[in-house]
Formats: sequence, structure tokens, C-alpha cells
Amino acid sequence: MPPKRLSAAEYTAGILAGTRTVLGRAITLVESTLPADQALAQEVLQTVLPHAGRSLRVGITGVPGVGKSTFIEALGRYVVETLGKKLAVLAVDPSSQRGGGSILGDKTRMPWLSAHAAAYIRPSPAAGSLGGVARATREALLLCEAAGHDVIFVETVGVGQSETTVHGMVDFFLLLMLAGAGDELQGLKRGIMEMADALCITKADQGNEQAARRARLDYQSALHLFPPAPSGQVQPVLLTSAVNGTGVAEVWQVIEDYAAATQQNGYFPLRRQQQQLKWLHESIVQELETQFYADGAVRNRLPAVQQAVAAGQLTPFAAATELLRLPGGLQGPS
Amino acid sequence: MPPKRLSAAEYTAGILAGTRTVLGRAITLVESTLPADQALAQEVLQTVLPHAGRSLRVGITGVPGVGKSTFIEALGRYVVETLGKKLAVLAVDPSSQRGGGSILGDKTRMPWLSAHAAAYIRPSPAAGSLGGVARATREALLLCEAAGHDVIFVETVGVGQSETTVHGMVDFFLLLMLAGAGDELQGLKRGIMEMADALCITKADQGNEQAARRARLDYQSALHLFPPAPSGQVQPVLLTSAVNGTGVAEVWQVIEDYAAATQQNGYFPLRRQQQQLKWLHESIVQELETQFYADGAVRNRLPAVQQAVAAGQLTPFAAATELLRLPGGLQGPS
Repeated sequence: MPPKRLSAAEYTAGILAGTRTVLGRAITLVESTLPADQALAQEVLQTVLPHAGRSLRVGITGVPGVGKSTFIEALGRYVVETLGKKLAVLAVDPSSQRGGGSILGDKTRMPWLSAHAAAYIRPSPAAGSLGGVARATREALLLCEAAGHDVIFVETVGVGQSETTVHGMVDFFLLLMLAGAGDELQGLKRGIMEMADALCITKADQGNEQAARRARLDYQSALHLFPPAPSGQVQPVLLTSAVNGTGVAEVWQVIEDYAAATQQNGYFPLRRQQQQLKWLHESIVQELETQFYADGAVRNRLPAVQQAVAAGQLTPFAAATELLRLPGGLQGPS
Repeated sequence: MPPKRLSAAEYTAGILAGTRTVLGRAITLVESTLPADQALAQEVLQTVLPHAGRSLRVGITGVPGVGKSTFIEALGRYVVETLGKKLAVLAVDPSSQRGGGSILGDKTRMPWLSAHAAAYIRPSPAAGSLGGVARATREALLLCEAAGHDVIFVETVGVGQSETTVHGMVDFFLLLMLAGAGDELQGLKRGIMEMADALCITKADQGNEQAARRARLDYQSALHLFPPAPSGQVQPVLLTSAVNGTGVAEVWQVIEDYAAATQQNGYFPLRRQQQQLKWLHESIVQELETQFYADGAVRNRLPAVQQAVAAGQLTPFAAATELLRLPGGLQGPS
């Protein structure tokens, strides 16, 4: 049985005091789809909002097998232990089936962080639409910031659209890669390399150092051939080894240098502002879409129309016009 | 004064007979935003639709200065003169200010094609939203196909979002590049190289051959480091010289080989089907958006809400909920 709901004031006080259990319950609240929970969640969010926004938000992605958990454990430990910062680790995984086992899962994945009071690990909201998972994660991020976390990692599964989503909520986006002949690229989404603020080749150890260094040179040359990033910063290619414990401090230095340089040139606040406005627009469009496709008349007619369009028997624009005339009050496109 | 409107039957007969003047007037009709024109245009489109879809659709992009017109003139001439095919050249340029001078412009840009009966050149629809220009161009493409054109080139200006739009309406997307030290990348949109089905380095002539060949090797290595294309095909890097007249036949061979291979592996029809369904979905979403943002209450409230969101005083989701409650009948997101 879930614990009884707190009042908005209790949530707010607990979050601002950095009380872990209250933070956890507040995140559960923003993840809830019950209207009453949603209303309360928005009230809490609005109150703590002035205390949010002060962390450094770092997105981390990479295909399965790249050693993401090991990397996050190592970088996170550096941030907490060496730098003395408070860290939260969130995840975006729309396929996640979260249950009672998730805490144990994180304890196994990141044993040091899981046991440390200055690190807060939260698994992905349970399976749902990417839009829903994204919203819950963005709001969880704000709550973690209000609770005093200096650094937020948002990890993603490295497949599908979830990277784009995470890219849209962080200040720095890090792509983990394996050195190799190209097989490791099979699972990687096209376009993601250009989206990254830095590449990091993991597992640069155990006789793999040479391949890793060669891969670094290759990627460095390749990235020079691509258009410059809107941040104005070069995308560095880094090497880390979890076994040797090397490269972790360098990765953090790159992230801090990036933050400093983009604060200086104005891109850091601009990116955040653009992300906020995009999120606003996307929330609106997503809701308009949801309402449209949920309309009974549209749902009845859609399969036949889609089939005719796919078969080239009906132009998409004519089909759209027909569907848009179905729900009450909407006019066809002009 | 514009010529008087034809009947749907007259348009249809003229298009299917390949009558140039009727094709031109039909494209003007689909470009018109007058409701009566739109209704007639849709009727004509629906009738000719079974005769469309049989061309090879090639998108061509590249930054200003890359020599796009010269390239299109050369490749188009090869297609028309050597292969004996019927060609149409369309353009997507949302910034275009089309006027009486455009025909002269095309005569200067592509003198051979402009003078040839088997080549039909149509400038971009006049400035407007990218969505509107895209719709008109997609429909013009269908009309050109129904008029018997075997090959359609869709050129784009190489800046902003228009490449993505053109990529979404063609079978093969070609990116023209200059050889050089990197300056030529300044105007290139990030992510576009991964979107291309082939790269072509132009101006591989006049003492520039060595730089062009080196650039080709560099791009080839770079592209190997990137995830494979969904087509299953390698992205070749080609060289052309308008001065020497070299490389044009090779470019066409690459396009034909690509079409054959993707017909074989099923990607060609799949890509077209996905494009159609995406166009349907986008037409719907675009119209829902347009109607929403055109609502008087939304327009009044939007600037203040955007400012609060950008300043971090209001969460985007709460802002969206507020705006969605404004127009009659819409509910907040759930």
C-alpha cells in the first residue's frame, strides 16, 4: 500500500530541506497520472521552482554494452567523493518495467553511489509514452535541484528517440562509445554523434588501449569534417578505463570547461531558455495530438485512411483534411 | 491578369497528356491559398494520383557557392540528353520572392535545361511557411509525375529546415560539398551529412583535384565511423567537375544503383510509405497547431506565459495546461 499523500507544504519543506524520502515521494507524485496527484504535483513544483535551475545537467548515453553503469559509478564517485558535490542520477527509459526490484538493480549497477548519502539514484519512470516519461523526468530534475543537488546525470538507454529527449533537458550531452571496427555502431542512432558535446571511448584498458587511442584519432578527424556545434565549442574525444580508473577526472574537467565557456559566450543560458520554450510548445502539441487521435470518429476512420494513403490512393493532405473535419468544431487546413 | 481557371477535367486531361502549360497552371493552382482553388486542386490531384509515383525522386542540397545550379544543369542534361528521360526540377526555398523575373533566373542558372522540351523547371512557391511551401512542392511533384516525368530533382537552399523537408519527399538525397579546410562547413546544418544518401564534392577541377581527392578520402573514412544508413547502403563520396565535365555519369550510376538495391531489399517502397504516413500526420499536427495558436485568447496570453517560462518562473507543463484551457472545449493535458 502506498504511503498517504503529504500536503503541498510538507512536500515543499521536505524537498527544500533535502530530505531524501520526501524527495522520493514527490517524484512519485509527479510520475502519477491521477488528476489529484497531478494537481498537487504542479502546486509543489511551482513552489520549489525558484530554488531549481542551479545544477549542472549532464546527459549520458551509449549503446548497451558500452559500460554506462560503470562509467556513471566512476564519474559520479569522482563528483561526490573528490569534489564534494551532491549528485542525482535520473534515467529515461520508456521501455522500463519498474518494480520492486529496481532499487536492488541500482545497488548492483552502481554500488558505491547507491550507498552514499550525497548521491540520489532514481530509476526511469515506468513504461509509458516517451512524452510522459520525459515530462516526469524533467520535473524530477527540477525537484532534485530544489533539494540541493549540484549535479544531475540523466542517463538514457541509447536507442530510439530517448537520446533526443534527454539532449533536450541537459546542459551537456556525453556519448559513450566503444573502440572497434564499426560493429559497435550498429545500435547507435544516426545523428547522435553530431548531437553530443563530447565523445568518450570507454574500456580503454586490458590491451585495448591502442585500439582506443586509434579510435580517438579517427573520431577527432571525423568530427572536424562536420559543421561546428552551436555552442561554439569543439567536441572533444576522451578515453576512460574503469579497470585502471583513468580518464574520469579529465571527463569532468571537459564538462566544467564547457559550462564555463558557454556561460561566458551566452550559449549556456540560451540553451536552457530554448529548452524551456520547446518543452512548452511540445507539451501543447502533444496534448492537441492526443486529443485528436483519441476522438472516436477519428479512431474509427484512421486505419482506412492510413491504408489508402500508404497505398498511394489518397493524398496525405486530402486525407488530413478529411480527418480534421471529423471531430466537432475543427475545420480543414487552409 | 491570371488566365481563367480550367475545369478539373481540362486540368486532368492536359496533365496526363503532358501539356506543359496545363501542368504549369495546375501547379499554380496547388500553390494557391484560395479555398476555391484548393478544392479544385484536390479534385485534380485525386484524379491524377493513380498516374503518379513512378518517377525517381532525387533531392539535391548544398550551401550557397557549392555550384548547385551548375551541377543540376550537368546532371539534368545527362539524364535528358544521354538517357533520353523526361525531367522536372522543383525547388523548396521558403525565403523565395518569386516574381516575373524567376523564369529569366532559371534561364540563366540552367540555360540548357531551360531550353529543352524534355526538362520542366519550376521555381519554389513564393515565400510562406515551410509547411505551406513543402505541401505545394509535394503536390507539384505528383503532378509532374502524372505528366510523365521519369526523374524529379527537388533542390533546396541548404540552410534551415528545408533539407529535412526535402529529405522527406525524395527517394535519394544528395549533398553537394566543397573541398576545403572546413570553412565551407560553416553554413551546413548539423546532422545533414548523416541524412545524405551520397556526398558529392563539386569543383574538382582547376588545380583543385588534389584537395578534392583528399577531401573524398577524409569523408569516406569519417562516414565509416558513423552508424549505418537505414537503407542498408554505404554512402559514397563522389567527385564532379563542371569545367571538365567529369563525374556526372558516375553520380547518376550511384543513384540508379541505390534505387535498384533498395527496390531489392524493400527499403525503397518502405521509405515512400513512411513518407506518406508522416506527411499525413504532419498535415494534421500542423493544422491543429495553427488553429490553436490562432485562437484569440491564446494569442493574448502567450507572450506573458512564454516570458514566465523562459525566466524559469513557470514550468512549461503548467504553462501548457494554462494555455490549453483557454480555447473553447479543450482540456488540460492528462
